[in-house]
Amino acid sequence: MTQSSRSDRFGGLELRHDREWNYELDRITEAIDSREADTVGLQFPEGLKRTAPRVAADIEGAANRDITTVISGDPCYGSCDIDMALARRADLFVHFGHLPMSENDGILYVPLFSNVDPLPILEEALEELAPPEELPDVGLVTTAQHINMFDEMKATVEAAGYTVHTRRGAERLSQEGHVLGCNYASADLPVEHVVYLGGGKFHPVGLAMEHPDKHVLIADPVNNLVTDADADPFIKQRYGDIHRAMDAESWGIIFSTKIGQERWELAQEIVTNNEAAHLISTDEVTPDRLRNFDFDAYVNTACPRVTTDDAARFDEPLLTPGEYRIAIGEKPLDELAFDTYHGTW
Amino acid sequence: MTQSSRSDRFGGLELRHDREWNYELDRITEAIDSREADTVGLQFPEGLKRTAPRVAADIEGAANRDITTVISGDPCYGSCDIDMALARRADLFVHFGHLPMSENDGILYVPLFSNVDPLPILEEALEELAPPEELPDVGLVTTAQHINMFDEMKATVEAAGYTVHTRRGAERLSQEGHVLGCNYASADLPVEHVVYLGGGKFHPVGLAMEHPDKHVLIADPVNNLVTDADADPFIKQRYGDIHRAMDAESWGIIFSTKIGQERWELAQEIVTNNEAAHLISTDEVTPDRLRNFDFDAYVNTACPRVTTDDAARFDEPLLTPGEYRIAIGEKPLDELAFDTYHGTW
Repeated sequence: MTQSSRSDRFGGLELRHDREWNYELDRITEAIDSREADTVGLQFPEGLKRTAPRVAADIEGAANRDITTVISGDPCYGSCDIDMALARRADLFVHFGHLPMSENDGILYVPLFSNVDPLPILEEALEELAPPEELPDVGLVTTAQHINMFDEMKATVEAAGYTVHTRRGAERLSQEGHVLGCNYASADLPVEHVVYLGGGKFHPVGLAMEHPDKHVLIADPVNNLVTDADADPFIKQRYGDIHRAMDAESWGIIFSTKIGQERWELAQEIVTNNEAAHLISTDEVTPDRLRNFDFDAYVNTACPRVTTDDAARFDEPLLTPGEYRIAIGEKPLDELAFDTYHGTW
Repeated sequence: MTQSSRSDRFGGLELRHDREWNYELDRITEAIDSREADTVGLQFPEGLKRTAPRVAADIEGAANRDITTVISGDPCYGSCDIDMALARRADLFVHFGHLPMSENDGILYVPLFSNVDPLPILEEALEELAPPEELPDVGLVTTAQHINMFDEMKATVEAAGYTVHTRRGAERLSQEGHVLGCNYASADLPVEHVVYLGGGKFHPVGLAMEHPDKHVLIADPVNNLVTDADADPFIKQRYGDIHRAMDAESWGIIFSTKIGQERWELAQEIVTNNEAAHLISTDEVTPDRLRNFDFDAYVNTACPRVTTDDAARFDEPLLTPGEYRIAIGEKPLDELAFDTYHGTW
């Protein structure tokens, strides 16, 4: 089939030339050729799934071979969350929208970079800080969507007279300055103020939970807003859930089978030391999946953001492994900390 | 840990001696011994998940070895729906509540048989039929929950003067007389009347969809009711969905990764012959999983009962493969048929 016939069918958009997202058709077709792929798996995060039929049609049209594309229908919330069933079935597997957490021969990562200029809002954010003569040191982090502009961001902070501090904090992170919802080690910096450049509250709230001693300033180029991150409502809810779980007489310890969220040893260690605890293995951690069980409380060894962000949706208290140790009296209450996720796969 | 300490913690029930469900602790502990299993995976259908902590505690208490049990948290709707991620991780995998669809060395099936006497309601049902002198031939089918009493049921029908017809219709079915939600080949019998013995409407409605020429009489020992199965509301909805899908300009063809629901060739054949169709690979087929895509209509090659029973919950029309052929004009409307699922795995 031809590119144009496909495009007509999907509303006439020439997505191949869509300036909003360059999804690197050339790199994909080259990989199809070099692997002699017949079946090509495509995985999109939730926010990009709507484009999946058009991207699949474009790839089929551009390919030099007769291929079958297969779109992953499983939920996808990050590069920790690779559809391995489809990756195993496909000759080539393309994961869109995230940076690699772990390099793998069979997986091609096609990131999605924002086309919004991050520098004006960054300049605006710096004006909120004390002048560089008083507080010269500023940390800088961003998300995968803006990481392609990280050098320019650093130059902007320096041009304003500050000393910019950055690092690649962990193997789980793709590069210097990069943060994930589960890992903010790139902000482990000798600074009081960290500027987070990116859209939304999800990442900066995690950053503030992980680094409660730091001031987290949000420069949001998507909503064109400068604000401070506030983790207090989340932390209060964590204390609430810990207290509710202190009376639990039975515990479900959740182990996730998602390839980048497996903490089997941690989960197993908990049940080994608590006779009232049982392991539950699942891919998704949702209220529906737990509703039919009869445990008093749960520990989620998978994605910490399900625990901290979705807690109110669960009927029973859902704790991180660290919070669990507080609930059973192994750690004092003031050792509450963000459940940083380490390692790759 | 001891059996009694576990039982105390889970409410003092001695489930090992629970007369409502003999879950064959001896057979499980023997399998643990013979495999020298350290990790034992346990999978329960939704209706039995509430008992999972107690069953897991009983197994740990009864085992002669120090074992770790792991309960599957994924949804489970039948013996087509084995948690293979857990089965691969565990040394022994126990699937509760269903009969084997396919024998597998690593999987132990522990069925759940009803303790309700099926014979009184069966006798009552037979009184609804014409007397044996007028219509001597009666078919008989039942579900996994009552199949242990199948010989007694057959004898009851014969004692009433009828000639009872039974068969094991397909490899997918465990034995003579057994029906599944997706396969009613055990009712492919030279009779006008089929007596279905079992609780609820799910199976007899499927049976009536598969065999629209037969009278399906329900003998429900759980609700103590005799009724006729009526598939008309479902069939009307199928026609409605087919008509809605006739205008579709883009199709999502759903392929399930559940081991007993994989119809890869069928799904691939559809996309090969329709340029407006794309494959979607997923484990669960739910409205949430499809909501972020932008297809006009979907074909579900996985569990047919999701299509026929949950249709109203989906935003776009969801068709069986046979209904799809009607919608695209390859088959006449009057060839609408139940999407019988064949084969094992």
